[in-house]
Amino acid sequence: MSELKNDRFLRALLKEPVDVTPVWMMRQAGRYLPEYKATRAQAGSFMDLCKNAELACEVTLQPLERYPLDAAILFSDILTIPDAMGLGLRFEAGEGPVFDNPVRSEADVNKLFVPDPEGELQYVMNAVRTIRRELNGRVPLIGFSGSPWTLAVYMVEGGGTKDYAKVKGMMFDRPDLMHKLLETTAKSVTSYLNAQIEAGAQAVQIFDTWGGCLTPRDYKEFSLRYMQQIVDGLIREKDGRKVPVILFTKGGGQWLEAMAETGCDALGLDWTIDIADARARVGDKVALQGNMDPSTLYASPERIRQEVATILEGYGNGTGHIFNLGHGIHQHVDPEHAGAFINAVHELSAKYHK
Amino acid sequence: MSELKNDRFLRALLKEPVDVTPVWMMRQAGRYLPEYKATRAQAGSFMDLCKNAELACEVTLQPLERYPLDAAILFSDILTIPDAMGLGLRFEAGEGPVFDNPVRSEADVNKLFVPDPEGELQYVMNAVRTIRRELNGRVPLIGFSGSPWTLAVYMVEGGGTKDYAKVKGMMFDRPDLMHKLLETTAKSVTSYLNAQIEAGAQAVQIFDTWGGCLTPRDYKEFSLRYMQQIVDGLIREKDGRKVPVILFTKGGGQWLEAMAETGCDALGLDWTIDIADARARVGDKVALQGNMDPSTLYASPERIRQEVATILEGYGNGTGHIFNLGHGIHQHVDPEHAGAFINAVHELSAKYHK
Repeated sequence: MSELKNDRFLRALLKEPVDVTPVWMMRQAGRYLPEYKATRAQAGSFMDLCKNAELACEVTLQPLERYPLDAAILFSDILTIPDAMGLGLRFEAGEGPVFDNPVRSEADVNKLFVPDPEGELQYVMNAVRTIRRELNGRVPLIGFSGSPWTLAVYMVEGGGTKDYAKVKGMMFDRPDLMHKLLETTAKSVTSYLNAQIEAGAQAVQIFDTWGGCLTPRDYKEFSLRYMQQIVDGLIREKDGRKVPVILFTKGGGQWLEAMAETGCDALGLDWTIDIADARARVGDKVALQGNMDPSTLYASPERIRQEVATILEGYGNGTGHIFNLGHGIHQHVDPEHAGAFINAVHELSAKYHK
Repeated sequence: MSELKNDRFLRALLKEPVDVTPVWMMRQAGRYLPEYKATRAQAGSFMDLCKNAELACEVTLQPLERYPLDAAILFSDILTIPDAMGLGLRFEAGEGPVFDNPVRSEADVNKLFVPDPEGELQYVMNAVRTIRRELNGRVPLIGFSGSPWTLAVYMVEGGGTKDYAKVKGMMFDRPDLMHKLLETTAKSVTSYLNAQIEAGAQAVQIFDTWGGCLTPRDYKEFSLRYMQQIVDGLIREKDGRKVPVILFTKGGGQWLEAMAETGCDALGLDWTIDIADARARVGDKVALQGNMDPSTLYASPERIRQEVATILEGYGNGTGHIFNLGHGIHQHVDPEHAGAFINAVHELSAKYHK
């Protein structure tokens, strides 16, 4: 493997000194970029794009051609694991992801299994290997997975949901079944992320998109507990270098202390928490990634720059901050505004690293 | 006016002793009740139902016929004020509320005005008067309004939104315009709630449904600041009795201290915060309303009862707790489960009021 030319992102995750604050954007390979839309049209369906290593690599690298980003993130979907378990993932226009075989009964839960990362999920590992090779050491590659709870929401609901009727119904009335589902899913995520690390991912992020829909008690019992199992089971060093783990629970600002206790290296923050408060609460234990409101990118470049300055000032001096949006970049954002954001982070952060 | 036979709700809001914990449900007059659906079908459109004082009264009282609830809440919509400002409210099937004339430009903002509560909005006051008369002192009547920020989201977006592109675009780039819009809206809400109090509302709640989509700084500047103006301008005593004010920001669990500083009487809590923590943080200052996950009502009556017990135990001994869901009751809930919930609150709470 070629030597890493820009390791700011990995250094900041481990709280090692950096020259400027590293920055990347969740969903940076996405529909706001015309070149992404062109490749997506060429690929066929969204899953066709995920399953084609060359095209997945192409879209992963597209934002790096435009912007001086400090990390690349594997282009894939969070629902690859349940799809590999046989749930039959489809993307319906306007409806989002749909599973033909949702998990509703005890029999359904008993049928779940840990997919082979180099079997049903080999297309993901092939994408990781291709991207890592094509990156050629330019920046580190981030691997990722959905959290067990977040996957469970889709697996039980059979798609997106507004009211969580089915998944919470199972959680409340059949906690034994829900725990069994989550156990299998947590093992699957662990094996999946470890395979990504073996294939070349240099850091991993767990996306707990729906953890914030739970009560504090249920969050700990049904989401955090399984993220803990994953953190405990991950490869944490590869080729003589640490492989940092980032936990991101959207809406999890109230539970940062508990998340930091898992032994992860960093927490992703959405924009509803002040990063200065977050640092005061857990910043001696973990690095922090975030947390500009993605809607700020609808504002003028001057206003975006001002917001970047406020967040940098909030975090304050020293390493341990990876700049990001508080959630994925929206599809209707002007790519120029994303560029203004990324440049502002590098330009305005140097003074905090003297 | 006839004397109030059950004043538990008002007493708990003012932290006066009660025999059992009072309970009501946000959206208790709603689609989960077959009798509501029947009246709704008879009325015509949703706004036809809101504008017909007799039918609005009928649906307001329906849940009280089924359950021993401790309060009634005016049946109306949160978007009556912008509709009265001339924005042209419609409800599209499957799409939710839509404004024909959204507020996008400086000229649009300049056209906004404070509607006359006994003019354009008289249908709401007629409903309040009718309901209060028909309640005949059975339980108190709650009046309500959306918060200025929440109304602004709909007014600028022209309907529901996932990414807040337009409203946050205005907020970031033209804060002067956004403040002007919010000033007029806050004055309108104050006058609207005061008219509801004059017409017979015995407590009022401000629904800040979208405050939780803001950063902590923006929440204080664009949402809380205007709720403060409203609290300052409300009639707080009527017919020799205090008129309590409840603030409810969905997703506002991180900002309870600031909300309690406004001088309101109670805070509504969603389910993502532990009520024991909330009481420790602000319970000497305000009463607390909440906070069972509405999805718990999909579970069995036994499981619902267990959850009620946990929340009662979390709040602990003494007054100052009004039991509620953490958000509106979902439309697919079994009405029997709602009944199990309400009975459990009364049955299990007596021991905390000895």
